[in-house]
Amino acid sequence: MKFATLKYQDIIRPCLIDSDKEQFWPLADLIKEFNGDMNQLVLEYSQLSAHLAPDAQGRPLVEATILAPIPRPRRNIFCVGRNYHAHAKELSETVFRDSNKKTDSWPIVFTKVPECVVGPNDQVTLPADISSQIDYEAELALIIGKEGKNISRENALSHVFGYTIVNDVTARDVQMRHQQWDLGKSFDTFCPMGPWIVTADELDATNTQVRCWVNDQLRQEASTTDLIFDLPSLIETCSRGITLYPGDIIATGTPAGVGMGMTPPQYLRSGDTVRIEIDGIGTLSNRFA
Amino acid sequence: MKFATLKYQDIIRPCLIDSDKEQFWPLADLIKEFNGDMNQLVLEYSQLSAHLAPDAQGRPLVEATILAPIPRPRRNIFCVGRNYHAHAKELSETVFRDSNKKTDSWPIVFTKVPECVVGPNDQVTLPADISSQIDYEAELALIIGKEGKNISRENALSHVFGYTIVNDVTARDVQMRHQQWDLGKSFDTFCPMGPWIVTADELDATNTQVRCWVNDQLRQEASTTDLIFDLPSLIETCSRGITLYPGDIIATGTPAGVGMGMTPPQYLRSGDTVRIEIDGIGTLSNRFA
Repeated sequence: MKFATLKYQDIIRPCLIDSDKEQFWPLADLIKEFNGDMNQLVLEYSQLSAHLAPDAQGRPLVEATILAPIPRPRRNIFCVGRNYHAHAKELSETVFRDSNKKTDSWPIVFTKVPECVVGPNDQVTLPADISSQIDYEAELALIIGKEGKNISRENALSHVFGYTIVNDVTARDVQMRHQQWDLGKSFDTFCPMGPWIVTADELDATNTQVRCWVNDQLRQEASTTDLIFDLPSLIETCSRGITLYPGDIIATGTPAGVGMGMTPPQYLRSGDTVRIEIDGIGTLSNRFA
Repeated sequence: MKFATLKYQDIIRPCLIDSDKEQFWPLADLIKEFNGDMNQLVLEYSQLSAHLAPDAQGRPLVEATILAPIPRPRRNIFCVGRNYHAHAKELSETVFRDSNKKTDSWPIVFTKVPECVVGPNDQVTLPADISSQIDYEAELALIIGKEGKNISRENALSHVFGYTIVNDVTARDVQMRHQQWDLGKSFDTFCPMGPWIVTADELDATNTQVRCWVNDQLRQEASTTDLIFDLPSLIETCSRGITLYPGDIIATGTPAGVGMGMTPPQYLRSGDTVRIEIDGIGTLSNRFA
């Protein structure tokens, strides 16, 4: 199934989506007692899922505005750095200069603040007076569905509710000058997310394609089979000693082809549009200004 | 004023405290319409503060259990690394080995997940099977009271609601092997906080003493006048392009004297007690097991 958070008739509602027929059903129409947001759906999904079979036509998706599926994550988003081999190489003398050169040692995990999330129709604000090195990072993101701590690789995927797309927008100069990356990754509007969540049963996220265009120029293209640390490893890593909760988000890293890796570097400018597609999920497109 | 979150008669309540007379007043008793938690108090403080003058004796503090003043921060806690000159030196060949040697360049900012917060009476769990290098870090923490973005140094302290103490407990091996520090700082129970919040008008936090004992051995002792980046600079830094909200917490860094800086390093063991005092706030003491 696919779930989106939509603004429809001026109300923000978590909804079931049929992306082929371009229809939606507000969850409150399908489950009378449900009055929550997407975080609540994730939390109660095992009890609610049986009630999610619409017996009538949905409403036309074109009549609603698509917001980020989880507009306000419950805490900072876990993000993974340097997780595709080719990307590790392209930034080896800049962002990863001081990093351990053994790319397969341990994952690099940092965070983005929850309030920097915006939706597929929102604009990303270039903080012109703070940074002139704004870069895109197309990423598959997973949403945790089941609480757990010290989750084993073997059980890891059973803790996943579903998948979505994020653009891990980054101010490269700020990222590097503070050494720890959270600030340079957390500027307001720096986490476009969407267009919806595809539940884990409908997507083999361990083998899907991630592509990213800037103004229709293809910049990033990779399969998640090329991840240095696969999805089970990332869940195992993040949950070592740390309880993961339903609604937690892990962005799994970006492929080669970021603006900083080009010669010369190509940073985003006002008017640019960044479009990300992940097979089996959909398209996330945002204008920068 | 001082505010604590107390468990009294099995209910968790934000309370006004008189730490000298060892008395407390539940906020709901002082302000009839107030039914919120500490985050709500911080948010509404400018409207509520006039109603916080008790006209009767409080209840005895000894009858309540003191929890963390903000038991569940609204998002990850901003934390500052390497912010006292002597501490920068003691870890220059370990944690800060790959860091820019110019300590006064830009602050290092990372985060701890909100769920790792525990109170003054809680035990910190040593994750024995994950790390044997658990270390303490005594820190002054500030709580933001007024929303802001791109806050100037000059206005910064007017955005502070108050101050408390945190122990930024750290798994040194995990901190270093992932390069980004968030995971090694975020294990369950790794952020003792308390015992209460002292409002900004009652403490000159730019000039107070921080001390830390492990089993009654004094390990850390410094004045906040020795900070590399002072409090206004930290607020300016964290708010550059990033909106800060009431209830956000910034832990301001730890003085020299951590276990890793000793020769040989002295990590925490089961049965150890770490006690932190900050003049003008109080004492935070936690047992490790």
